[in-house]
Amino acid sequence: MLPLLCFCHRYDLLSLYFLLQSCPATQPSMLNVHLVPHTHDDVGWLKTVDQYYYGDRNDIQHAGVQYILDSVLEQLLADPTRRFIYVETAFFFRWWRQQDSATRKAVTMLVNEGRLEFVNGGWCMSDEATTHYSAVIDQMTLGLRFLNDTFGACGRPRVAWHIDPFGHAREHASMFAQMGYDGFFFGRLDYQDKARRIRDKDMEMVWRASESLTPPTADLFTGVLPNGYNPPAGFCWDQSCNDPPIRDDPNLEDYNVDNVVKRFIEIANDQAKMYRTNHIIMTMGSDFQYENANLWYKNMDKLIRYVNAKQSQGSKVNVLYSTPSCYLQGLHQANLTWSVKMDDFFPYADGPHDFWTGYFTSRPALKRYERLSNSLLQVCNQLEVLGGPNSRKGPYGEGDSDTLQEAMSVAQHHDAVSGTEKQHVANDYAKRLARGWAHCEVLGSRPSTTPAGRLKELDLSFQRLNISVCPATENSYKVKHTLYNPLSRMVSWPVRLPVNGSDYMVLQPHGQVLDSQVIPVSKATRKIRGDRGYAVNELVFRVQAPPVGFRTYVVSQMSRQHPPVAPQPGTPLSMENQFIRVTFDPDTGLMNSLTNLETKQKIQLMQNFYWYNASDGNSADSNQPSGAYIFRPNSSTPIIVSQTAKTYTLKVNSVVQEVQQEFSPWVSQVVRLYWGSRELELEWTVGPIPVEDSLGKEVITRLDTNINSSGYFYTDSNGREMLERRKDFRPTWDLKQSEPVAGNYYPINSRIYIKDKVNQLTAVTDRSQGASSLQDGSLEIMLHRRLLYDDVRGVGEPLSEPGDDNKGLVVRGRLLLALTPPKDAADIHRPLAEALVLEPLSQVQIYPPSVVPLRKGLQASLPPAVHLLTLSQWDQESVLLRLEHQFQVTESPTNSQPVTVNLKKLFSTLEVVGVSEMNLSANQWKDEMNRFDWKTSGGIVTFSTGNTNEKGIFGMCQSCLHKCEVF
Amino acid sequence: MLPLLCFCHRYDLLSLYFLLQSCPATQPSMLNVHLVPHTHDDVGWLKTVDQYYYGDRNDIQHAGVQYILDSVLEQLLADPTRRFIYVETAFFFRWWRQQDSATRKAVTMLVNEGRLEFVNGGWCMSDEATTHYSAVIDQMTLGLRFLNDTFGACGRPRVAWHIDPFGHAREHASMFAQMGYDGFFFGRLDYQDKARRIRDKDMEMVWRASESLTPPTADLFTGVLPNGYNPPAGFCWDQSCNDPPIRDDPNLEDYNVDNVVKRFIEIANDQAKMYRTNHIIMTMGSDFQYENANLWYKNMDKLIRYVNAKQSQGSKVNVLYSTPSCYLQGLHQANLTWSVKMDDFFPYADGPHDFWTGYFTSRPALKRYERLSNSLLQVCNQLEVLGGPNSRKGPYGEGDSDTLQEAMSVAQHHDAVSGTEKQHVANDYAKRLARGWAHCEVLGSRPSTTPAGRLKELDLSFQRLNISVCPATENSYKVKHTLYNPLSRMVSWPVRLPVNGSDYMVLQPHGQVLDSQVIPVSKATRKIRGDRGYAVNELVFRVQAPPVGFRTYVVSQMSRQHPPVAPQPGTPLSMENQFIRVTFDPDTGLMNSLTNLETKQKIQLMQNFYWYNASDGNSADSNQPSGAYIFRPNSSTPIIVSQTAKTYTLKVNSVVQEVQQEFSPWVSQVVRLYWGSRELELEWTVGPIPVEDSLGKEVITRLDTNINSSGYFYTDSNGREMLERRKDFRPTWDLKQSEPVAGNYYPINSRIYIKDKVNQLTAVTDRSQGASSLQDGSLEIMLHRRLLYDDVRGVGEPLSEPGDDNKGLVVRGRLLLALTPPKDAADIHRPLAEALVLEPLSQVQIYPPSVVPLRKGLQASLPPAVHLLTLSQWDQESVLLRLEHQFQVTESPTNSQPVTVNLKKLFSTLEVVGVSEMNLSANQWKDEMNRFDWKTSGGIVTFSTGNTNEKGIFGMCQSCLHKCEVF
Repeated sequence: MLPLLCFCHRYDLLSLYFLLQSCPATQPSMLNVHLVPHTHDDVGWLKTVDQYYYGDRNDIQHAGVQYILDSVLEQLLADPTRRFIYVETAFFFRWWRQQDSATRKAVTMLVNEGRLEFVNGGWCMSDEATTHYSAVIDQMTLGLRFLNDTFGACGRPRVAWHIDPFGHAREHASMFAQMGYDGFFFGRLDYQDKARRIRDKDMEMVWRASESLTPPTADLFTGVLPNGYNPPAGFCWDQSCNDPPIRDDPNLEDYNVDNVVKRFIEIANDQAKMYRTNHIIMTMGSDFQYENANLWYKNMDKLIRYVNAKQSQGSKVNVLYSTPSCYLQGLHQANLTWSVKMDDFFPYADGPHDFWTGYFTSRPALKRYERLSNSLLQVCNQLEVLGGPNSRKGPYGEGDSDTLQEAMSVAQHHDAVSGTEKQHVANDYAKRLARGWAHCEVLGSRPSTTPAGRLKELDLSFQRLNISVCPATENSYKVKHTLYNPLSRMVSWPVRLPVNGSDYMVLQPHGQVLDSQVIPVSKATRKIRGDRGYAVNELVFRVQAPPVGFRTYVVSQMSRQHPPVAPQPGTPLSMENQFIRVTFDPDTGLMNSLTNLETKQKIQLMQNFYWYNASDGNSADSNQPSGAYIFRPNSSTPIIVSQTAKTYTLKVNSVVQEVQQEFSPWVSQVVRLYWGSRELELEWTVGPIPVEDSLGKEVITRLDTNINSSGYFYTDSNGREMLERRKDFRPTWDLKQSEPVAGNYYPINSRIYIKDKVNQLTAVTDRSQGASSLQDGSLEIMLHRRLLYDDVRGVGEPLSEPGDDNKGLVVRGRLLLALTPPKDAADIHRPLAEALVLEPLSQVQIYPPSVVPLRKGLQASLPPAVHLLTLSQWDQESVLLRLEHQFQVTESPTNSQPVTVNLKKLFSTLEVVGVSEMNLSANQWKDEMNRFDWKTSGGIVTFSTGNTNEKGIFGMCQSCLHKCEVF
Repeated sequence: MLPLLCFCHRYDLLSLYFLLQSCPATQPSMLNVHLVPHTHDDVGWLKTVDQYYYGDRNDIQHAGVQYILDSVLEQLLADPTRRFIYVETAFFFRWWRQQDSATRKAVTMLVNEGRLEFVNGGWCMSDEATTHYSAVIDQMTLGLRFLNDTFGACGRPRVAWHIDPFGHAREHASMFAQMGYDGFFFGRLDYQDKARRIRDKDMEMVWRASESLTPPTADLFTGVLPNGYNPPAGFCWDQSCNDPPIRDDPNLEDYNVDNVVKRFIEIANDQAKMYRTNHIIMTMGSDFQYENANLWYKNMDKLIRYVNAKQSQGSKVNVLYSTPSCYLQGLHQANLTWSVKMDDFFPYADGPHDFWTGYFTSRPALKRYERLSNSLLQVCNQLEVLGGPNSRKGPYGEGDSDTLQEAMSVAQHHDAVSGTEKQHVANDYAKRLARGWAHCEVLGSRPSTTPAGRLKELDLSFQRLNISVCPATENSYKVKHTLYNPLSRMVSWPVRLPVNGSDYMVLQPHGQVLDSQVIPVSKATRKIRGDRGYAVNELVFRVQAPPVGFRTYVVSQMSRQHPPVAPQPGTPLSMENQFIRVTFDPDTGLMNSLTNLETKQKIQLMQNFYWYNASDGNSADSNQPSGAYIFRPNSSTPIIVSQTAKTYTLKVNSVVQEVQQEFSPWVSQVVRLYWGSRELELEWTVGPIPVEDSLGKEVITRLDTNINSSGYFYTDSNGREMLERRKDFRPTWDLKQSEPVAGNYYPINSRIYIKDKVNQLTAVTDRSQGASSLQDGSLEIMLHRRLLYDDVRGVGEPLSEPGDDNKGLVVRGRLLLALTPPKDAADIHRPLAEALVLEPLSQVQIYPPSVVPLRKGLQASLPPAVHLLTLSQWDQESVLLRLEHQFQVTESPTNSQPVTVNLKKLFSTLEVVGVSEMNLSANQWKDEMNRFDWKTSGGIVTFSTGNTNEKGIFGMCQSCLHKCEVF
C-alpha cells in the first residue's frame, strides 16, 4: 500500500477521498517540478522571537509572522490547488492562540486536506552543532505534541526540514528517524561536497545515522535542496524580493510571459540533471517570506498556467504546487536504490575560506546557561512527577516547568544557542531562561518535595555558584542545604557554598559530621563577581544524593573562627588523590604530566592558553573576516597568552586541592582535584578579552601530549554517539583543505578524545564548543571569542559580548580530564558527562525549622548503561518516561551490552498501571509507525562483532504510563 | 435632507438602507477621529506607471498596485466596518480589466455600500502648477467616466483629493467646483501659511476659486490635512513602515496596548486643537501603501477597539473607520461659518530655503511635448467627430484618439509633466505620447477627413518642424500641404517646411500663388537636429485655415533655383511690420525698444539670457540643493551668458524677418517678425547646458523695460484666469521672505505680464514655465535647468537630462511678446494663447493625385469670447462638446461680456438633434448636481461692476448631443 500523505483516523469516508487526493497528480512521462511554497521563520535571530511574531522592530528586519500566517491562510482558502508548509511551532502556537473558532476550523480543514502541511514541526528548527540531544528531543516533543493535540494525525509532519542550520549532525538524523520521519531535507552543506554530489547525481541518499541501531531504525532518507532554501534565481516573488513579476497583460508595457516561461523551463531542465528521478523540488520562499502571500501565489498561479500550457506544444515540463512529503512520495515511488551516508555534514563551508566553525563556540556564557537550564528543566520535570498535582503551588507562588520548557525550546533554535543572534536577542533568550528558572524555583520550594516549613529565603544557588555568589549563605550562620539528584544512580557531588565565616560544621542527615573545607574566594573570582556578592570564603564539601531524590545537610558556622589557609605562591611538583597524579613544571607553573594511579599509565601533558588572531577580512585570498558564524584565523599559529603562569597552591586537606594559575589579567585557571574523583578539573576563566590592540581574538586552550594519535580524534554528536575525525580529511569526498585550522574544527557538545593503543585522554566539557586536534597528541578547544567585524552572514554585528560592565564578557568553565586505557574510557566518560549534563540541584534555605533528610524517587539505581532521559508529567494521569541506553555499540565491553529494566519496580512512590510504547517524539504510537522503506547500496555497515543491536541497545526508550516503546 | 454619501438610483430599497448607513455613526458629544485608510499611488514617478501597476522594478521602489487592490479587497470583505478610498483611476482601470466577474461583483457591492469609496477619481492626481486646464479636464473626464460607466452614481467621487501636488492652483479648485465636488483636501502648503492657519484654527475654509463666476459656482470647501497625507507619528502600520504593531497578547513580551492608547488619545486631542469641529481626520496610509492591507487593518481594528474601550472610563475620544466624504459630512453638519480664500497656494515651501519652484520649468522639452500633444489630441477628437464612425480606419491602419487620450491623462500626473520623475520614467511618458501620436496619425490620414488617394508617405510634420526635420518635404519636388485648424475661428498661421530646393511655388486651393520665402536652415538648428534631417532650407509661408476645418496647398519646387539669401552678419537698427517695431543696439546686438505702431506706444526693452548658479547644498543657512523640485540659487544675482550677441540679419521679403542672435555656443535666439503679426516672436535655443565647471545652471531670459510695475506682475492659473502677484508678498499671511528669487517664482502655463497705466507687456509662452518679476519693469522666465544634485525629495536623481547624445539636452521654444494698453491686452493675448495652445495640425503628403482644397466643420466662426474647448465623440450616438467663455470678468470691455451660441446652427456637417447639460467632468447631469452649501465669512467679493456673471460668462459649457449644460 502506498503511504498516504495524511492519514486521519478521525475522518469519515468522504473526507478520506480528499486525503487520497492530497498529493497533486504528477505526470509520469514528464519532468515534475514540485513548487514548495514555504517561509523560513527564525525563532529569534536579528529580532527576538516575539518581535518576529508581531512584526515589531521592522527597522531591524522586516518580518512579522502573525501576518504571514494570516496571509497564507487567505491565499490557501482562495484556491484549493495551492499548498503551503509550516515549520516552526513556536510561532504557529502563538498565532493559533489568537484565532477565533471559524479561523481554527478553516485551518483544520486545510490541514486535513493536505493543503497546509506541517513539516519538521518542532518548537523551532534546532541548531545541530551546539545542541544537546536531550534538549532537542524535548523541543521537538513540545512542538509535535501541540500539532498532535490540535490536529491529530493529519498534523503529524512526515518530513524533517532543516533548511538553514549550518552543518548537519548525524545524531539529529538518528533522532528524526526514531521520531518517525520519512525523509529529511536540508540546504547547507560544504561547497566541495555539494559540487561532488551534483557531479555524481548524489544529491539524495539514505543517511545511516547510528552505528549502534540496526538498520533501518536510524536510516533517514536525506535530500540536499537545489538552491539552499531559496527559489531559483529570478523567481522570487515575495515582497522582500525584486524579481520581475509575471506581466501578462498585453495592453501594458513589458509583457514578459514568453521570457519567463523560457527561463523557467531552462532552469528546470538544468536542475533535473543533478537529480535522479523525474521529480525535482523548488523551494519557493525564504526568510520570513509570505507576509503578503498574494504576491507569491498570484505569480506562481501564472507560472504554472503558462508553463504547463506549453505542454500542448510538446513541452515535457509539468509544474505543480506541492509539499516536501509529496515530493518525497514521488521519489519513493521511483523505487530506486540510493547511496548510503555514514558520517555527518560537519564542518560546513560555503567557500574556501568560509568555514562556519566559529559558532561552535560563539557566546560561551549563553551556551553554558542553556546547558545548565536543561539540567534544571529535567529536575523540574521530575519534581512535578514526584510531587504530584499540587507540586505547582509552593510557598513562593505558582510554579511550573512549562515556562522553562518553552524557553529551552526557543533556545534550541539555530540562531539561539548557536550564538549567531544579535546581542539584544541573546539577552532575550537569557531572560526567557531566567523566567523559566523563576517558575521552577517554585517547584523546588514545594513542601512535599523538599522539607516543609515557612521559608524566608531560598536560593537555587547553582545559578551563580561559579562566581561564589549566594546571598542565603553569605549572610547566615546556619543554613539547610539540599542536593537534588536527577540521575538514576547515586551521585557524589562537590558542593561549594560562598560564606563569610571561616569555620563550619556540615551535619549529615543522621548527625554525622561531613568533611568540609573553607577556601578563600580567589582574586579572579572576586574581580568577576564585582558587587554581586561579598563572600570571602567558600565552604567545600562533597555530598552524595540518591537516584531521583535528595539529601539534606545542615551547615552551621562555628563560634570559633580560624582564618582559612590561603593559597600560597608557588608551584607544587605534583598534586594527587587516590586515582590521579598531575605534575607541574615549577619553572613555568604549567602541568607537565598526568598519571592514572589505578592503571599506572602516564602521559606527558602540557596545557596552555593561546589565541588566534581573527581575520579582519583584509587578505589576498579572501575578504572573509571571522565573525559569529565564521572562524577564520589570519595565521594557523596561535599566539600564546603567556609562556608561564603565576601560581598559587592550596594543598591542605582531604576535600580538594588546587593549583591556581594566572596567565594574564584576562586568563586564569584552577587545576583542581577533589578527593575521590577520577577526573582532573580545569576551571578556566577567560575575559574580558582585550581588543584595544584592534585584533579580534579567538581564545583556545591546548593540551599537548605524547599520545600517538596519528591525525585522528573523536568528537561527540549532540552529546551522544562519538564520531571519528581525521585531520584534513572527509570520509565522503576528496577534500581540498584551504583553511588548515578552521577547516579542521568540529563541534563538541560533551567531549573530545585522542587515543593511541595504550592511552586515551578524554576531555569532558560543560557546554558546546569548537575543538580540534591539529597535531598528533594535541587537543585544542576554543573557549571564548571576541571579534571586531561582522562576518557578512546577516547578523550584522561583530561578536563582541559586552558583559555586565560593557568592558567585555568574562567566561568561566570547566574541562574534566580523564586518562584511561581506550577500552575503559567510556565507562568513565559516559557517567562523567551524564553527571555534568544533568547536574544535581543545589538548594539552600536559611533557618530551617525542620529537615527531611532524604528522599529517593527510584526504588534502586538503574544499571550504568541506562540513563533516565525524561521523567515528566504528560497529563493529569500519565507520565512521559524516556530511558536511554547511553553506551555506543563498541565502546564498553560491559556497558555496551543490552540491558533490561523492570518498569513496574522502577519508582518508589509511583505505581505504574500501564505502559504504551511511542516513537521518540511521543506523537505516534510505536506500532503505528510505518515509515517509507528505501533500497540502499554502497554503504558499508561496520557494526562490530559481538553486538546484537537488538532492543534495548543504544536506543532511547520512551514511555507513558499508558504506552511504551523500547527499540 | 442630508446628502447621502452615495446615492444610487439603480438600487432597490433594501440596498438603500445600506446607503443611508454608509457613513459610520459618530458621537455628538465626543471627539470623532475619522481614520481614512488610503494609498497614494503615483501614476509614474520613480517607476513607470506600468511598473508601478505590476510591482516591477521593486529594486527602485517597492510598489505594486495590483497587489494593493487585491489586498484591500480581501480586507474590506472581511469586515463591514472597514473603509478604503481609492483615487487614481489609471490604476483601478488596469486592475478592473483583469478581474473575474465574481470579483467585480464583490467590488461593486463594496462601492454601493460605501465601504470602498472613490475619491478624486481622475485618471491621475494632476499636477497643479504645470498643467493646462484643458488637459486636466480631459484626464478627469476619462477617469470619472470609467467610474460612472462601471459603478453608476455610487462610483462618483464627492471629494477632490490632491494630497501630494506641490502647491495648489485656484483654477483647479474652480474646476473641481464645476465638476460637482463637495469638498477638497490637500496636504502641502507653505510652512508659514500652515503655521498661521494652525494658530488661527483656519485649516479649513471655503475657496472662492474664480473672479468671474458667481458664488457659489466656483466655491469649494477646502481642508488642509493635518499630517500631509501620512498617519500621525508612530501609527504607520504599513509593511513599508517600522512603527511598532499593537502587541496585545499578554503572554508575549512587549505588551504595549496601554501605551498605544495613551499616545493616540494625546495625539487626537492635540490635533483637535487645530480644527474647529468635534471631527478630525487622520490619513492612515501613504505612498503605495496597503500592498498588504492586513497589517494596517489588523492594527487599526485593535486601535479602535482599545481606544473606544476607554470611553467606559470617561474617555471622550471616539475612533472610527471613515472616508473623506464622511468626514466632510461631519463638518457640514457642524453648520459653521467658514473663512473665504481668494488667492492660490503658490509657491509651496516646506522650509525657509526649500521653495518648490524649480519644477515649474523642470524638463522643458517634456513640458512642450505634452502641450503639443494636447493640441494634437483635440485635433484627433475633432477628426473622429467630423469623420464619423469610419474615421478610425485609414490607409495606415487602425487609429484612435483613445491611446493619446490615455497617454495625455497619464502625463498630467504630478510627477509627469511636472518634470519630477526619474529620467527613465520621463522617457516612458514621452514614449506613450509618441504611441498616441501614431494612433492619431491614422485619423489624420483618413480620406474622408483629408483628401482621398493612395498615400505613399505622410508626415504629421509639426512633430519636428522646430528643428527643421520633415522627411516628406526634404525629398520631394511636389507635396500637398494641409493645415487643419481646431479653433472655432479662422486662423492665420506661419508654416515652415524643411526643403532642399531654394525656389518653390505655393498654390492656393483656387490656384492663386501664395507668397513664400526660402531661408537657409540656421547653424544652430543644424547642430541640434544632427543626422535626423538634412534639409538645407526652410520654405516659409503663412496660410489661413477655416474654423474646425482644413485648407490644402500644393507646394512645387521650381526648376530654376536661385540660392536663398542667407542671413548677413550684423545687427539692424530696427525691424518692423504693419504693427510692431523692434529696435536693436548695434553695439551689443540686443533689442532695446519695442513699439506698437497702431497705438504708438513704445517701451524700452532690453532682453538677455542669464543663469542662476544652482545651490549645491553647501551653505551655512541650509543644505538644500536645487533639484527637480526645488529652485535654490546660491546667489540672487544671475550670471549673464554674454553681454553681447553675435547677430545675423535676414530682412528680405514680406513673409518673415529675423535677427539671429548667438550668445554662446549653447544659447541662441531668433527675433522673428511675421508680416501681419501683432506679436514679436522670440525663438530661444538653450543647451546643452555646460556643467564641466561643476556648477548647476538654471537658465532664464529676462526682459527689462521701463514699465512702472511697482512690484506687481500677473500670471495665469492653469492657462485660464490671471492672478495678481506681488513681490515678497502673500495675500493671506505676513510673509517672511527667505529666498528673494525662488520665493518669488510662480508657475506660468500660458502667459505673464507686467503693466502700468499706459503699457502692458505680455509674454505668451509655448509651455509651462516658472517666472517672476524681481525688479520693477522686469520679467524673467526660467527656460531650462541642468543640475548636479538631487534635492532630497525622493526622486533620487539630479535633474540633468542627457539628450540624444548624452551630452545634455538642447531645448528650443518660443515667447510671443505683445505690447498693448492694459485695457486691450486681453483682446490680443487671449486669442494669441488660444492659437498657441491649440495649434493647427500641419500635414504633408507627397505626389498627391487629387486635392480637396477646403473643408470646414463649423458653419461660422464663434464669437471671439467663445473657445471650442472640447469636441469629441462620446459614444456611437453622441458627442461631447465644451464651449468656454475665455475672457476673464474684467479684462476686456467687449469680450468679457456674455455671449450666446446657437448650438443648432453650429456645425456644418453634423445635425444637433438634442442637447443635455452636464457638469464639467461629464459624469453628472447638471440638474442633478446638489453640492453641499457652506456658510462663508471674511472673503471680500470683488467682482467688477458691469458684469452680470450670468450664464455664459467665463464659465465652461459642455454638451453632448443628448444633453447640455451652460453655467
